[in-house]
Amino acid sequence: MTTATHLESWVPVGFGSDFPIQNLPYGVFADAEGERCGVAIGEVIVDLARAEAAGLFTSTGLRHGTFRQNSLNTFLGHSRGVWSAVRGRVTEMLTAGNEQGIAFARAHNVMIDHPVRLRLPVTIGDYVDFYSSQQHAINVGRMFRPDGDPLLPNWKRLPVGYHGRAGTIIPSGTPIKRPHGQMRGPTGPLFGASEKLDIELEVGFITGAGPQLGTPIPVDEAEHHIFGMCLVNDWSARDIQAWEYVPLGPFLGKSFATSISPWIVPLEALEPFRVSGTAQDPVPLPYLQEQKRQGVAIDLTVDLSPVGSPPTTIIATSFTNMYWTMAQQLAHATINGATTRPGDLYASGTVSGPTPDQFGSLLEQSWNGTRDLTLSDGSTRTYLEDGDTIRISARCDIEGAVPIGFGECKGTVAG
Amino acid sequence: MTTATHLESWVPVGFGSDFPIQNLPYGVFADAEGERCGVAIGEVIVDLARAEAAGLFTSTGLRHGTFRQNSLNTFLGHSRGVWSAVRGRVTEMLTAGNEQGIAFARAHNVMIDHPVRLRLPVTIGDYVDFYSSQQHAINVGRMFRPDGDPLLPNWKRLPVGYHGRAGTIIPSGTPIKRPHGQMRGPTGPLFGASEKLDIELEVGFITGAGPQLGTPIPVDEAEHHIFGMCLVNDWSARDIQAWEYVPLGPFLGKSFATSISPWIVPLEALEPFRVSGTAQDPVPLPYLQEQKRQGVAIDLTVDLSPVGSPPTTIIATSFTNMYWTMAQQLAHATINGATTRPGDLYASGTVSGPTPDQFGSLLEQSWNGTRDLTLSDGSTRTYLEDGDTIRISARCDIEGAVPIGFGECKGTVAG
Repeated sequence: MTTATHLESWVPVGFGSDFPIQNLPYGVFADAEGERCGVAIGEVIVDLARAEAAGLFTSTGLRHGTFRQNSLNTFLGHSRGVWSAVRGRVTEMLTAGNEQGIAFARAHNVMIDHPVRLRLPVTIGDYVDFYSSQQHAINVGRMFRPDGDPLLPNWKRLPVGYHGRAGTIIPSGTPIKRPHGQMRGPTGPLFGASEKLDIELEVGFITGAGPQLGTPIPVDEAEHHIFGMCLVNDWSARDIQAWEYVPLGPFLGKSFATSISPWIVPLEALEPFRVSGTAQDPVPLPYLQEQKRQGVAIDLTVDLSPVGSPPTTIIATSFTNMYWTMAQQLAHATINGATTRPGDLYASGTVSGPTPDQFGSLLEQSWNGTRDLTLSDGSTRTYLEDGDTIRISARCDIEGAVPIGFGECKGTVAG
Repeated sequence: MTTATHLESWVPVGFGSDFPIQNLPYGVFADAEGERCGVAIGEVIVDLARAEAAGLFTSTGLRHGTFRQNSLNTFLGHSRGVWSAVRGRVTEMLTAGNEQGIAFARAHNVMIDHPVRLRLPVTIGDYVDFYSSQQHAINVGRMFRPDGDPLLPNWKRLPVGYHGRAGTIIPSGTPIKRPHGQMRGPTGPLFGASEKLDIELEVGFITGAGPQLGTPIPVDEAEHHIFGMCLVNDWSARDIQAWEYVPLGPFLGKSFATSISPWIVPLEALEPFRVSGTAQDPVPLPYLQEQKRQGVAIDLTVDLSPVGSPPTTIIATSFTNMYWTMAQQLAHATINGATTRPGDLYASGTVSGPTPDQFGSLLEQSWNGTRDLTLSDGSTRTYLEDGDTIRISARCDIEGAVPIGFGECKGTVAG
């Protein structure tokens, strides 16, 4: 709850806005002047390119021309100190009562309040998708290996993950064409449009630069390399995936599209919402043991809107459910000496909580297509139908802190 | 065998050179003047940046500044017509008897014969690794599923593949640090340096631009999107891989390093070496059926040199052994609407022939560590030891055509 002791901005920010001055997420926008980087506050965007040109970031260590670009990657390539200094300057400029800040913003036309197009915020080099929600892994195990232990032997020993396709990561709002492909038929493989088009509710983190090839990132330093977080919808064609994935993992069942939210929330903005990580039993190997084990309290919501119908909330869960932390994921992903680069994306895997309304995919919600979900317009779903719009949103709201949100990650199935 | 009817160059090209005028592979080199694109002929490099600046590519449709760059990606983003026109101009300039070409090259200092550093030729967006050699898949099946059919049910129905890590693809010559990681122990997971460090002998292709998201590439048009080919060593830590890969596929067992050769051989240069593809039974689904099914006759060799010892040829096989063609691989990888971008890499998977000396990995050569390979210095190997140097080389040699080669893809295990 906001109280008088919390920082406020001279920019009007509506009650319940995802983007108060405590958030200041980064993105890339385009208008007649071209593409450039910006920060969201309330309903407007701080034009970082104009602010940079006008000298706002002098002596922060920011390299010239960082924000007049079509991605955040150059900014991501700077040190944590620069990230923090830039955030500090933007915060200061926007702080209520700062007459100099208001004058600067007006003089240099820094506040963009006309309509813009939001772009993919980051040129993603590599995209890793983890599988770090225990409830999700248990659900999948129960469905597909009903007679065995739902968790495979490696699951509690390491954050299982794989590489997805970076080139088909798209910004929120891009239509999702239903993929065609090969799937298992009664007497042999069939070809056609996927009939089991699904979502995966995920949260991802974006890295800055890492150490050189051959040098792992220690788990207690891993967050120093994490710039911020975004929402991810890892669209999945379950029928294509089921036929292809043994033994090398998911490929075409995933690679047709992965949507991300346009605003990257800096890790610094998430500081008030850090909570103790879940207990781990067994204790992992030393390279995965953290001095201070921290998750992030993010409430996640998924709405489904059929064509012409209002949204139904089909999933409401929390990112606190994750078994493996971001620090463990990044430490694991680099323990073999692999590098991370500015703009690499690491997604959590489907976030599922303990009760069915918290399961983060339609696969789990419909229990592999055996149970119907009923929407508010009376229609039912197992998997997605053409015209369905999926909207992921997320909020952080903890007693004593000003709530912030992630905006939205949206997509409509275009058939 | 070269005969008088074959085109020759005024540049001296030694007998048996990989790079006669019929080849003209593309790469990126660096010297005191900076990084730029070049073409190899014999022992020298054609400086494409200087040639471009001096007007060699006027009216080819090449965009300004394409070759004064640290990757071939901008060139790869041009159409096939431009690729071909540029190759035509370089060939013409280098043709024996072309006094104008000699004069142009001299006037503009186009021929680089001083030592240079070869860079990664391409900034790789996405890296897909297939599993398209039938003998390799059978060998792996026999080792790890001795009681079942060695081929899994999907193997002959689609080119099985997965995404690897693009950010750890390194140019030939980069040392390979032995990865550490988690592996299966007798009573639980262990941590340590991989004791089963392996190679995978592969050949890859690099794409140009593809159609927009949502539009598959038809199999008979797939080669129009392929620029050229290179050698790939998909270094693998078998012990890390074995413990991690179920159910989402290989991750850290592969992501520590993948080496590629510095020269990309254009598909146009490989035209004389195209051969009928292997027969496929069962006939694949229509989207994988080709009007003209073609492989490439590439002889592949792997040498292993212990520290201070001469090389032993440990593998000699042929790329004609592949079950799935490059066209089928690319058609499959995009059938769900996934895009391909200029600079994406698709590797073949381990190339294994029918006899043990043709098996393309130490896993197969040592039959999962149960058989010793004896080297020419009398030492033995199952997997790689520190200091071992692996060199992959490749030649195309068919009656009636001037033989060409791929240069080398080399790496030394740095422990």
